[in-house]
Amino acid sequence: MAGYVSDAVIRRLPGYYRHLRELEAAGVVQISSQELGKRMQLTPSQIRQDINCFGGFGRQGYGYQVSNLKEHIGEILGLTQQHKVIIVGLGNIGSAVAMYPTFSREGFVTVAAFDVDANKIGQRLGSIPVFDMSELENFLDDSKVDIAVLAVPAAVAQSTLDRLYKGGVRAVWNFAPTDMAHPDDMIVVNVHLSDSLQILSYKMAHRDDA
Amino acid sequence: MAGYVSDAVIRRLPGYYRHLRELEAAGVVQISSQELGKRMQLTPSQIRQDINCFGGFGRQGYGYQVSNLKEHIGEILGLTQQHKVIIVGLGNIGSAVAMYPTFSREGFVTVAAFDVDANKIGQRLGSIPVFDMSELENFLDDSKVDIAVLAVPAAVAQSTLDRLYKGGVRAVWNFAPTDMAHPDDMIVVNVHLSDSLQILSYKMAHRDDA
Repeated sequence: MAGYVSDAVIRRLPGYYRHLRELEAAGVVQISSQELGKRMQLTPSQIRQDINCFGGFGRQGYGYQVSNLKEHIGEILGLTQQHKVIIVGLGNIGSAVAMYPTFSREGFVTVAAFDVDANKIGQRLGSIPVFDMSELENFLDDSKVDIAVLAVPAAVAQSTLDRLYKGGVRAVWNFAPTDMAHPDDMIVVNVHLSDSLQILSYKMAHRDDA
Repeated sequence: MAGYVSDAVIRRLPGYYRHLRELEAAGVVQISSQELGKRMQLTPSQIRQDINCFGGFGRQGYGYQVSNLKEHIGEILGLTQQHKVIIVGLGNIGSAVAMYPTFSREGFVTVAAFDVDANKIGQRLGSIPVFDMSELENFLDDSKVDIAVLAVPAAVAQSTLDRLYKGGVRAVWNFAPTDMAHPDDMIVVNVHLSDSLQILSYKMAHRDDA
């Protein structure tokens, strides 16, 4: 991929990937920017701009090859690499993420989970072994971990993040409902569930403004 | 709240609410745009612009009253109203959302859940009664529901959304990993978990580009 890609385009990439995967599964071989735009609620020229931006695929008038474009976007998203994942905090959200079926298909392999609950430690969640939180440092010493899913209570989120950083983890997918400080060489992507529910609430309260 | 509020400001509102709640809990009474900006990784002038935009609070040089501003933003977000919620689909994600502790604090009250699993139907998840999916229409006939949490498999998401619409539900918080068509008078906010994991993966793959 050549050159600068804006944040807005990056945010749209997973949507492209999802729609192209659905189209591929439905047996669609080729799609025009008009059709793809309609599906994704983007203008055809926006679609063409985006796709040009990540590599100049497609030829105007012929449309895009669905499988090729999907593969290409998957590569840009890093989905062709395998990522070793640990889940830190096996409450409801952590457990749900651990069991989420599509992640392993996309190369995210969960190798271990950590919790403080004696009833969970030593058990398995599906095929995932559950360790005591106190074993986190030892585990990270022995194993390279690409991504930690952080699903601990907000009150211990920052200290847990710091432990992950010291253990060498440089990418965190955070579900704790708080924003944390982190060094520049650590990537943190937050999923604040309350935020999106509040956006829904906002839209309901202001439904008649428009 | 007067006038037009941009999507970008709306997207930031839950962040303001979260930080102000944390500050309030920490006993902070007053905060300057500088301090709040540092916390939220926004410039002080961005903070002042945003807060002006949703009602012209605060006086320059004095900072903002934390509790007042939090209450005000909560009102804008519609959090002072109670919302009756149902959960449709009690898999891992649906169950986790049903049990999420902060939602009820913010006025989102889950009154029922629906699933097709005979082992779940007739049981309770915490205090929430679980009904057969086939009872959805009857339930919606009898009860006004403000928000449906949609957490069914992608393959049945569209048909379930259509049933919710026919039953009078006009707001959906969707966790099914697909984008659905819906009438203009229905608000749908999607939480595509894969998308944010893919954004994390993208940032990891392009860590050294910058």
